[in-house]
Amino acid sequence: MNHDEDRRARLQFMFAFEGGSAFWSREIALRTAPEVLARLQSGNYLPQSPSATRKIHQANVDDLERLIADANARLIIPGDAEWPTQLNDLEAPPIALCLRGAADLRGLALSSIAIVGARAASNYGSRLAAELALQLGERGWNVISGAAYGIDAAAHRGALASRAQTAAVLASGVDQRYPSGHERLFEAIEANGVLVSEVLPGVTPTRGRFLVRNRVIAALTRGTLVVEAALRSGSLRTAGDALLLNRPVMAIPGPVSSPTSAGCHRLIMEHKAELVTDLEDVLLHIGPLEIQNPKDGTLFSARDCLSEQEGSLLDHFPSRAAISVEKLAHLSDLPPNRILALLGLLATTGFIEREGAGWLLTKKGKAA
Amino acid sequence: MNHDEDRRARLQFMFAFEGGSAFWSREIALRTAPEVLARLQSGNYLPQSPSATRKIHQANVDDLERLIADANARLIIPGDAEWPTQLNDLEAPPIALCLRGAADLRGLALSSIAIVGARAASNYGSRLAAELALQLGERGWNVISGAAYGIDAAAHRGALASRAQTAAVLASGVDQRYPSGHERLFEAIEANGVLVSEVLPGVTPTRGRFLVRNRVIAALTRGTLVVEAALRSGSLRTAGDALLLNRPVMAIPGPVSSPTSAGCHRLIMEHKAELVTDLEDVLLHIGPLEIQNPKDGTLFSARDCLSEQEGSLLDHFPSRAAISVEKLAHLSDLPPNRILALLGLLATTGFIEREGAGWLLTKKGKAA
Repeated sequence: MNHDEDRRARLQFMFAFEGGSAFWSREIALRTAPEVLARLQSGNYLPQSPSATRKIHQANVDDLERLIADANARLIIPGDAEWPTQLNDLEAPPIALCLRGAADLRGLALSSIAIVGARAASNYGSRLAAELALQLGERGWNVISGAAYGIDAAAHRGALASRAQTAAVLASGVDQRYPSGHERLFEAIEANGVLVSEVLPGVTPTRGRFLVRNRVIAALTRGTLVVEAALRSGSLRTAGDALLLNRPVMAIPGPVSSPTSAGCHRLIMEHKAELVTDLEDVLLHIGPLEIQNPKDGTLFSARDCLSEQEGSLLDHFPSRAAISVEKLAHLSDLPPNRILALLGLLATTGFIEREGAGWLLTKKGKAA
Repeated sequence: MNHDEDRRARLQFMFAFEGGSAFWSREIALRTAPEVLARLQSGNYLPQSPSATRKIHQANVDDLERLIADANARLIIPGDAEWPTQLNDLEAPPIALCLRGAADLRGLALSSIAIVGARAASNYGSRLAAELALQLGERGWNVISGAAYGIDAAAHRGALASRAQTAAVLASGVDQRYPSGHERLFEAIEANGVLVSEVLPGVTPTRGRFLVRNRVIAALTRGTLVVEAALRSGSLRTAGDALLLNRPVMAIPGPVSSPTSAGCHRLIMEHKAELVTDLEDVLLHIGPLEIQNPKDGTLFSARDCLSEQEGSLLDHFPSRAAISVEKLAHLSDLPPNRILALLGLLATTGFIEREGAGWLLTKKGKAA
């Protein structure tokens, strides 16, 4: 299958269908997106969603590409250098993602933690969310949340005050900036991190989109921290999504009389979340930035999250000297533009750094 | 072995040795208290504790009996109707206990919960301890604690305000009333419940006695609730003792900034305690007043905690009519004074009640 053909098919899908459908994910995994699209267009599926089926005929790829470009956004699909492969752990991975912002999503997500919680947060919760995000950021952890009022906003702000990056996964298009009171927060996230959406620019948030959005937050991150949550809340849904993925779920306790701690207490009580009270507790559960091999306990680095191509490119680096793109092209048999894309990713994830006109292994790259 | 001989030997032991020694408990279980005493007096043990060995020669049983009587106290040993048999679950059960107060310790302890916590409790913790003790008391649960300042006192006071009984297990003799600021609390517990001690009247509290005292609180009760506790505290020790006995341990969360909640959070974090926030959560863990048979899930009553003799006496009761002591003596072949002791216990634990000159099964007794 041609990557561009895949991209065009997925873009039409994104336009026509809501995210989070396990059925379409299975179909696409089984048949590829272009084949499923062709079958849709020739009426090979029962009209499970008549409006989506109608829309798939109206989708004009050039218009959609322009829509994304006009919103200063970019589209990524599986196989792209910026696609976070851990999304494939989901039962229904996003068909594609629309991004807007300076950071590389994959690099950011490799060392990220989700900090989520109540919109109607207490001062106690907001303060804790900001403090922990800042402290995690200072240790090199990036923070991913949902840009909502309350805990989400406090978490993004804490991360922005640190040396780390932050990403917001939205239930609307990346140009919609919901809630509107967060205009400046969205600007700061774009400048420092990245806005992420499973829907196209122009699409407004709905209750359903908030719910399916939560699984993306859970899947992108190495663990989910619920700071405050009411008994029925989207944060508990994110926690449930993280549990399904076998990612660590943590919750912060509070006074038993506080309704915004009731959801956290419930998670702990039902043994769905570990109780944490401070940075050290959180680090205990999400582990070191470098990941431990569960088989033999040895540390293996984020390198093991890289693709085979990225890993083998890294192998061509000399241990001390810099290497040029031309030399790498010669050694690796890859086209230079592919090498540039791979180098960008390896630099974002901290394995290599620029040295004059060439590239050099970092300390982390040498250890890998 | 003669019960009175056993009692005299244990009384001398209590005078000479500190409680909580697994060595002496094993020796007594193996050889009986009178035999161990005889071996001690003839120098058959290495002088592990020279002062205790010296004291065992000085012990005068009549003087000790008078000491107990003068303190308005009573001595109980294993085999006595008031001895709580669940104490035998301990690695080092008390050799004997000194009691003072109106309630029957065994009956009280059969349906009891330990509520313990920090001396330097916060208002948050004290209020919760009192509220939960009151609510548990209204459901028929008796509360056992240590009569200390803070959480202990709040728990006793909550229980006293309910229809239940409360017992305080002391690190000193039952006449010592430590801390002295609790004089009125001690009076109320004596009038409504019972003071319990592993040492003789006149003995003052020491750090060591506080620590071994905690295991008695854990062993007497069906579960231990830690309301507030600092990171290093006696309440955590009580929780550890309850864990060793496989009794439920519960802890209440609080603000992460509160040092008196840190111990509770640690217990929950280390999966040594279940997080609970209210009465319903607590009841979930300690189960119904009537105990469930783990084998087949059927409810069996507190009767199953009764001795064989007590249970078989209950079997002689007609289902509806009252029965006289004479008739029971005829049916059971037990001496009347033994029957009177057993009836007292069965009445205290709610299986039977007086009906004119005889005794009648209660609803609980019929169900048993």
